[in-house]
Amino acid sequence: MSSATRPSDDPLQREGGPPLSEQLASHFAQRVARQALAPGARLPSVRACASLYAVSPSTVVAAYDRLQAQGLVEARRQRGFYVREPRLSPGAVMAERPAAARMAPPLDATALIRGMFQPGGAPGMPGLGTLPEPWLDQALLDRALRRTLSKDGDALRYGQPAGDIALREALSRRLGGELGIAAAPDQIVTTLGATHALDVVARTLLQPGDAVLVDEPGWAVEFARLSRMGLRLLPVPRSGQGPDLAVMARLAAEHRPRLYVTVSVLHNPTGNTLSLAQAHQILKLAEQHDLTIVEDDTYAWLAPVHAPRLAALDGLQRTVYVSGFSKILAPNWRVGYVAAAPTLAQRLIDTKLLGTLTTPALFERSVAWCLDQGQLRRHAERVVQRLDGTRARVVRLAQEAGCTLAAPPQGLFGWVDTGVDTDQLARLMAVDGWLLAPGRLFMADPRASTLMRVNFASTHDPRFWHAFGAARKELFRNQPN
Amino acid sequence: MSSATRPSDDPLQREGGPPLSEQLASHFAQRVARQALAPGARLPSVRACASLYAVSPSTVVAAYDRLQAQGLVEARRQRGFYVREPRLSPGAVMAERPAAARMAPPLDATALIRGMFQPGGAPGMPGLGTLPEPWLDQALLDRALRRTLSKDGDALRYGQPAGDIALREALSRRLGGELGIAAAPDQIVTTLGATHALDVVARTLLQPGDAVLVDEPGWAVEFARLSRMGLRLLPVPRSGQGPDLAVMARLAAEHRPRLYVTVSVLHNPTGNTLSLAQAHQILKLAEQHDLTIVEDDTYAWLAPVHAPRLAALDGLQRTVYVSGFSKILAPNWRVGYVAAAPTLAQRLIDTKLLGTLTTPALFERSVAWCLDQGQLRRHAERVVQRLDGTRARVVRLAQEAGCTLAAPPQGLFGWVDTGVDTDQLARLMAVDGWLLAPGRLFMADPRASTLMRVNFASTHDPRFWHAFGAARKELFRNQPN
Repeated sequence: MSSATRPSDDPLQREGGPPLSEQLASHFAQRVARQALAPGARLPSVRACASLYAVSPSTVVAAYDRLQAQGLVEARRQRGFYVREPRLSPGAVMAERPAAARMAPPLDATALIRGMFQPGGAPGMPGLGTLPEPWLDQALLDRALRRTLSKDGDALRYGQPAGDIALREALSRRLGGELGIAAAPDQIVTTLGATHALDVVARTLLQPGDAVLVDEPGWAVEFARLSRMGLRLLPVPRSGQGPDLAVMARLAAEHRPRLYVTVSVLHNPTGNTLSLAQAHQILKLAEQHDLTIVEDDTYAWLAPVHAPRLAALDGLQRTVYVSGFSKILAPNWRVGYVAAAPTLAQRLIDTKLLGTLTTPALFERSVAWCLDQGQLRRHAERVVQRLDGTRARVVRLAQEAGCTLAAPPQGLFGWVDTGVDTDQLARLMAVDGWLLAPGRLFMADPRASTLMRVNFASTHDPRFWHAFGAARKELFRNQPN
Repeated sequence: MSSATRPSDDPLQREGGPPLSEQLASHFAQRVARQALAPGARLPSVRACASLYAVSPSTVVAAYDRLQAQGLVEARRQRGFYVREPRLSPGAVMAERPAAARMAPPLDATALIRGMFQPGGAPGMPGLGTLPEPWLDQALLDRALRRTLSKDGDALRYGQPAGDIALREALSRRLGGELGIAAAPDQIVTTLGATHALDVVARTLLQPGDAVLVDEPGWAVEFARLSRMGLRLLPVPRSGQGPDLAVMARLAAEHRPRLYVTVSVLHNPTGNTLSLAQAHQILKLAEQHDLTIVEDDTYAWLAPVHAPRLAALDGLQRTVYVSGFSKILAPNWRVGYVAAAPTLAQRLIDTKLLGTLTTPALFERSVAWCLDQGQLRRHAERVVQRLDGTRARVVRLAQEAGCTLAAPPQGLFGWVDTGVDTDQLARLMAVDGWLLAPGRLFMADPRASTLMRVNFASTHDPRFWHAFGAARKELFRNQPN
């Protein structure tokens, strides 16, 4: 398209700038933020917008997709894109829905999750929960799938309810050999990722009204799911030193919870890993109060070699062990699993059957191959090494930007105190296309916070910290005190 | 292995008989039925059994797997196989758990589902819910997967929350072009098969304690899942003439249900398809009582060309449309979907995210390819033609065996009145490795019945009807009257 058709006040930098779709999205995001486009307003049609800004229709589609992923606009059937009601405004969610707040998922949680699904070309997403695409090993995935395909005839059957036997055997070896968790293949049930595993466990063990201990801060999706199931969340404060066991003991005595759901190793978002002594204390407490522990080991492959697992200490008596491969191998293969006591494993299979019948064997068998060949182990070692490098860099950049680390930096996530309200910060920076994970998202009772989670693998772009510094300064200037 | 090592009273027919693993399984099943092996008894180790019966260890493993799939034995961790407590004994399930009956899934349902996962080499499984493996098109699946793989880079990202866009576009065309259901791609949400779709819809729209209208007879898995969610099931009698609308109106007025879950076309198990007039009446009733209708179109590809869909009449206002590809393309690909009004579609995405995050794009894009190339359409036409042939044969065999058809024979399933208690029949025939689907499984309030569901594609083996005749005669002989 020739420059003659461009608007005279062209807002797009045609050369040397970020991709045009990003710029266009950012332009609209700013107009939404300034309310130049009010909630409910319709964006121009793709064709009209392409003509107006002298870009191709596909650039407009990409820009609108981006705005939609950011939660700023929504697509309406055959009618185009409309500006949404603001989502991240602090307090607004809870104020709007006081009665239903416990039953409905906090909107923020699904907004953040939807943000995670932005195309990977984004400039740098401090709020993301996964490794950046270039860190993963596409060649390994291709090799694994093609090897499995050539022997595959399983698509014609539903497959085994417990999951592919090759994967369950490989997992049994991995758990026993590397993590000290003795689990026979028939104690393992595969799922559609660790998220599904946690859902299957909760649906098997809990009834509406039951109380559940959770770490706070903790992961928004877990809080949202448990809340939606009508459960009462009992937050146990978790810091860089681990969970507050005194609070946990008091809550257990007062509320008689059924379950404690916890990330024992490289906790999200603090990065904290339980010490052996803490793990032992927690298991004693669980026994005393007849608690089941759900150990979410999502970050298993990034963990220090000798990090203790509750399930290893306990021998899967009171613990249920959950993990998956989205954080290290292939987010979209959606392979996760549960290991549990034999009778509980049978109940988990029933829950899985009623909810989804089986899970695809092709991916499960491919993961088994990666495990058995040692490919995954070697890949994980490379990732850990690379992460050590970016982590050091992010910590330095964060400190230079005036932040402090609220917990010792470990694993994939940093828990960073910015000194300003991170809800406001997230809203301000979303205008420029930066996705943050404000502290509110990690609270069982959502509330404003000066903390945020950063992804050590994707937050080392100095441009982000530059934009962060400017936004932070602006917020300091506007603070009442 | 030489015949010299065989036991003198060799129970296995070495030549010309069924596979040895089947014979061995059947031998043990008979011993279990006769209580020669009581519940809790341990089966011989694989090695000991192989030596005892002069077969290879892999034959023993296959036989034990078969017994396990039949629910007769269970594997215990590193200790071998043990005879289970009987599962199908009539009334036992309800008697054992009177209070929890509504909340817990009927054991029978998961027993039947587990039965569905037996290896395909079984002699003929009248109770199965799927097409036999040889009816499916492995070559088509391979072609589709390999084409998709060569363009795939999606494993590294979570993928779109609503599901792969290529599939949603292909489905939008299929729904609009072939079924008269206008649904834009952003009204479609993909799921892990139709079962998962039904689960996502129920979790989005219902709270514990809500009342739900269901067809009776209907599908056990659906009943079990809804019961487990703490919902009140209101059975609407369904016959070969369709649902009883007078009962439905009365239940709707008395109990104010939120939802009516129904298979409108080729209903499982009656094979009934709604007439246009009935569909219209149901929609009027739904409007009058503010009901949402969940239309489960699992058997879409086997349906008569002009079968009306509620969603087409209603324009997806009060209806939510659910379908999938397990019954026609590939059970283990686990691809299903929901089509709904735009705002509801967004809520369904949130539920999907909290439960499983995303679903695998590889299979979704492969299904899209099969749809777009017309391959699925042609495959379905072949299946329908073949099914017409076996259906006529099964109907004849059933009538010759003294059964009557309780509904006009259509689609995949026959709803057959045997004149004897099908719980007892199922138990008796399980001894010989025949999996039946007794009427009890299709009742919202499980109770004994003389009806059973037969799969028209896999019940045309005269050996089955011979065994059936013998078992039926034995039951008649034992009947009190």
